[in-house]
Amino acid sequence: MDKTLAQRLQTISPFYVMALLHRAKELAAQGRDVIHMEVGEPDFPTPQPIVDAAINLIKTGEVKYTSAAGLPQLRQKIADYYQHTYGVSIKPQQVFITPGASGALLLAFGIALNPGQNLLMSDPCYPCNRNFASLYGADTIAIPVTAESGYQLTAALIHQHWTNNSNGVLLASPSNPTGTVIADAQLQAAVAATHALGGYFYADEIYHGLTYGQTASSALQYSDEVFVINSFSKYFGMTGWRIGWLIVPEVMIESAEKLAQTLFIATGTASQYAALAAFSAETLVELERRREVLAERRDFLYDSLLRLGFKVAVKPEGAFYIYADCSQFTDDSFQFAADFLEAEAVAVTPGKDFGSHDAEKYLRFAYTTSIARMAEAMERLERFIQCR
Amino acid sequence: MDKTLAQRLQTISPFYVMALLHRAKELAAQGRDVIHMEVGEPDFPTPQPIVDAAINLIKTGEVKYTSAAGLPQLRQKIADYYQHTYGVSIKPQQVFITPGASGALLLAFGIALNPGQNLLMSDPCYPCNRNFASLYGADTIAIPVTAESGYQLTAALIHQHWTNNSNGVLLASPSNPTGTVIADAQLQAAVAATHALGGYFYADEIYHGLTYGQTASSALQYSDEVFVINSFSKYFGMTGWRIGWLIVPEVMIESAEKLAQTLFIATGTASQYAALAAFSAETLVELERRREVLAERRDFLYDSLLRLGFKVAVKPEGAFYIYADCSQFTDDSFQFAADFLEAEAVAVTPGKDFGSHDAEKYLRFAYTTSIARMAEAMERLERFIQCR
Repeated sequence: MDKTLAQRLQTISPFYVMALLHRAKELAAQGRDVIHMEVGEPDFPTPQPIVDAAINLIKTGEVKYTSAAGLPQLRQKIADYYQHTYGVSIKPQQVFITPGASGALLLAFGIALNPGQNLLMSDPCYPCNRNFASLYGADTIAIPVTAESGYQLTAALIHQHWTNNSNGVLLASPSNPTGTVIADAQLQAAVAATHALGGYFYADEIYHGLTYGQTASSALQYSDEVFVINSFSKYFGMTGWRIGWLIVPEVMIESAEKLAQTLFIATGTASQYAALAAFSAETLVELERRREVLAERRDFLYDSLLRLGFKVAVKPEGAFYIYADCSQFTDDSFQFAADFLEAEAVAVTPGKDFGSHDAEKYLRFAYTTSIARMAEAMERLERFIQCR
Repeated sequence: MDKTLAQRLQTISPFYVMALLHRAKELAAQGRDVIHMEVGEPDFPTPQPIVDAAINLIKTGEVKYTSAAGLPQLRQKIADYYQHTYGVSIKPQQVFITPGASGALLLAFGIALNPGQNLLMSDPCYPCNRNFASLYGADTIAIPVTAESGYQLTAALIHQHWTNNSNGVLLASPSNPTGTVIADAQLQAAVAATHALGGYFYADEIYHGLTYGQTASSALQYSDEVFVINSFSKYFGMTGWRIGWLIVPEVMIESAEKLAQTLFIATGTASQYAALAAFSAETLVELERRREVLAERRDFLYDSLLRLGFKVAVKPEGAFYIYADCSQFTDDSFQFAADFLEAEAVAVTPGKDFGSHDAEKYLRFAYTTSIARMAEAMERLERFIQCR
């Protein structure tokens, strides 16, 4: 075939870590003991009440389509959760159940983002956020962020980078890859600045619940006109279930329904029934226990990396990542990651998966594995650094 | 907010049947016995081996992300299925597991369709196919099809409607809403014509397996350069599991992988493990039994509609729909459907959900409910017609 592929493919970047993962698999096949510190997925199983709820539905064999927006009782539970957690009132009709946060982003941008417009995002940020803009023929203005603003956007940065073609701002807190949580006043000002400029505010809150110290505020606390993207994957431990949600402003309910019908027909039914159990007291006790485990891991990994000479300018308060400055050891973090994998069979994610601003100086370490395994990884890292 | 929503929302049509469904729910809440003949989902439960496979995975609690393209063993099973069923050899790497056929369309058009281009489709056709083109900023050329060509496109029609901006052709067989299966020679010629014009051929084969008489050929039998969209929803009885697949030409494997990572991260893990059991001998025996039940229903409904004076120019050989000409009774099938629902509490889908060509003359009846229920619906229909 001599046809050309769609132009959007040229602006959608692959995940560079995939090449490392491919190599990691080869090493494992050769019998090497590979330690995975690149995975954005904790090692905990799905909480038992969620498992039970799914099995109870599936056993009946009645795994039929739900309505496009999702089970009414699940939308209600999510609305209740916002009342309890953030003290904000949303209507269940504003909540759209989606196939993961990926589906939520697809739906939000589908509703509000036009081709030729641009979206403001921090650099570094989660790469798919940029890719979803490209998907719809929109551009990204990647705004370099530094330790000074907690690696988060500020109202001043938004004003500084806003253009006539800007559609809005995407802000993720806790952030992937930096794990930083935006300060309340900074978030409030960012929302206000975006709205004052006439833009949409898209809040990526998929790591909410996973904070170790300061809790994360929802953008909904500062405006009821924001899009909120969230997920059962991270805090609720449901990665492979592919279920998340989008909260839309009330005026967009009808548009979101129409678009959700086309995009998804509906989200998986068993996952929706399973998620009904995600808010039970029993589940929440287990999730809080896990949060404590993650907090200990965060402390261990943070201390270890500093001891080895990595720099972490802002102690991460959320998610399960540390974005560590490795410029003392290399001026090419991708090569460092590749060499480290080859020499010591430990996989980490290179900075360039998250943007271009100083990306070659950074590595992302995920604490999604046990302290025992991380301790082994840190020994290997120490040896690797010393042998260079 | 005074911001405008995305332009694509203006070209994405809602499902008109949704308004009827809403009213049907109200009637049911009032105690009316509503018969649903609008639903594109059979009343069979998920086959037991599929249920068991899902439960076995979920019980472990290890419901983690799979790779973006899906479980290697499932991709292999699908490749094997094409060898057995159609005698075509495809590589498992060409098979991408997606969240339903919706995900497959999103992925296929994401790879190959540019904004400003147009896609040729039959009118009538499944409405979401048009909507996915709109999503990417592309247009649809809706080609009126008649009984003469079995309500399917032909090479001549493709040549006649092709423009400089045409990207390709989407062809669904068995067709929704007409249930017609394209003749082998007609399919072969349509594929050849599309490729001769330099276009992509997208074959929607989601109703394959559900044929009653003539079996449906795959576009892959005539070219290895086509996109094939398929699903576990219909023949395999897995609607609410949201799992389908896309087969891409070999040269597009890398692009499809990159895009699937962004669009989905992955398809639901339990659904993938469940689908591994879809090809077992035990499941296939049950599916063939169901196919026979559907064939009996098709015959019953076809005979009943003709007896009542509806016209069905081509006896449907596949899917589970009859697209019936009701012009003897009305010149506004939507109003007819609304009145019929109000008077007799039977829901059917109006033609305008599938296009604009003679749409007001047609109603789609789904035989996704038992003969006993359909018999009751036909009695009501007879009474309704007589009382008008």
